[in-house]
Amino acid sequence: MLSWVDGQPADGLPLADRGLAYGDGLFETIAVRQGRPTLFEAHLARLSAGCVRLGLPYDEGLIKTELQAFSTLLGEGVAKLILTRGDGRRGYAAPQPATPRRILSGSPLPCYPEAHAEQGVRLFPCATRLAEQPLLAGLKHLNRLEQVLARSEWSDERCAEGLMRDSQGRAIEAVFSNLFLVSKEALLTPSLERCGVAGVMRSVLLEQAAALGVAVAVRDISYAELLAADEVFVCNSVYGIWPVRHLEQQSWPVGPVTRKLQSIARTLLEVR
Amino acid sequence: MLSWVDGQPADGLPLADRGLAYGDGLFETIAVRQGRPTLFEAHLARLSAGCVRLGLPYDEGLIKTELQAFSTLLGEGVAKLILTRGDGRRGYAAPQPATPRRILSGSPLPCYPEAHAEQGVRLFPCATRLAEQPLLAGLKHLNRLEQVLARSEWSDERCAEGLMRDSQGRAIEAVFSNLFLVSKEALLTPSLERCGVAGVMRSVLLEQAAALGVAVAVRDISYAELLAADEVFVCNSVYGIWPVRHLEQQSWPVGPVTRKLQSIARTLLEVR
Repeated sequence: MLSWVDGQPADGLPLADRGLAYGDGLFETIAVRQGRPTLFEAHLARLSAGCVRLGLPYDEGLIKTELQAFSTLLGEGVAKLILTRGDGRRGYAAPQPATPRRILSGSPLPCYPEAHAEQGVRLFPCATRLAEQPLLAGLKHLNRLEQVLARSEWSDERCAEGLMRDSQGRAIEAVFSNLFLVSKEALLTPSLERCGVAGVMRSVLLEQAAALGVAVAVRDISYAELLAADEVFVCNSVYGIWPVRHLEQQSWPVGPVTRKLQSIARTLLEVR
Repeated sequence: MLSWVDGQPADGLPLADRGLAYGDGLFETIAVRQGRPTLFEAHLARLSAGCVRLGLPYDEGLIKTELQAFSTLLGEGVAKLILTRGDGRRGYAAPQPATPRRILSGSPLPCYPEAHAEQGVRLFPCATRLAEQPLLAGLKHLNRLEQVLARSEWSDERCAEGLMRDSQGRAIEAVFSNLFLVSKEALLTPSLERCGVAGVMRSVLLEQAAALGVAVAVRDISYAELLAADEVFVCNSVYGIWPVRHLEQQSWPVGPVTRKLQSIARTLLEVR
């Protein structure tokens, strides 16, 4: 499969990379259609914000040009960009200045069943709780053992995704998706100030819903409030939106706000 | 520098490794003296326990043999073993079964100033707090962004280490060391049930102190209790023990329990 390291075709990286040693880096997973990265500006904006938080030098021009060239070659698929702090010596102290490493790898667009988008999905209620770390909350960084543990909790294919809560039991996100609910015609999504990944599709949908005149709120959401919602859906920047139909004993219909936003998400993930 | 991947000389690893993608793995940092790994059984025991927690297959015989052979070649230095879940496809779900990857790299023994051990050190009071995640607490896993952030907080060389607290302000550990205090002739070290790395030197010292008849306790320790201690020291399996002399406005002498255990640690890190 297509892969580049620092702009050159490569299939390996040096053992001294701090991405391996400490998860010291960030990543973006971008759907590529007809040779072009989708939701490109939103992905770049999140990566840039993550670099500020981690103190990683960020060369937007270089990354943009490289992702565009990579996407042209990939054609259709998923481009994953990993940006690490580059090589380091033993010890947590980062080299000053650091020389970040750009790792690009391509894979086919995932083949999820059509039914996930059309009829909706069941969420597995993960026991793995997200720890509260405000300094890292929202970032798509490389420290993802919580997601690995959560994803290992179920193998039942009837569950397409898993719900993750924080240590207080608040609903936060799904393992590889963000979570939304519709309650009294308002669109709600959990605050990610303490934990969770601030997904690109999430941020775009918040903007789109506001532009449509839908009331939007980002705040803490208890598990009880989630269960009592009128509509629930999950989203990410690769598959768009999946309505959530079932979680434990609770069931939801596929509601009108979900369908409206799903149609918008589909358009955003097409070539324009 | 000497490095092996899965028992063969190599200086790179495949981009598909889950250690890079998610920090999905563990590591051990072992002082090697005269061709032999020190505190070897304790390192292997911790690695084995970590593999159980992460659901990683663990081949003790293979790892032991490989570390011994690597140490023979290294002679004097630090052998770092990274054990990852091996290659994966895109997504958090781990391959079943996983084929772990063993990454060994050697580096020289660090040249810390003699004064750290003799006169003691100052700790920097890190603002970065450790998040509470009982599922990962104690493990020396590859998700180490908290340590990276904490270590980036100071560059003043007068601080040899940094104190890390949890979100409640409890004293937990130092950035690359464990923390002990002596209070009313008892040896205390923070509980690592919610966060922190359960260091090999820490576990060995707990055993040694108990064998000496010193009262030992592992429990929550508030910052105030730390400041009020009679003696404070930090330890790890490479440098042994450094007495702590200063933290913010507080000062401590180098006490007799610290000196006694320091002498034991030194012996443990010598070739026997």
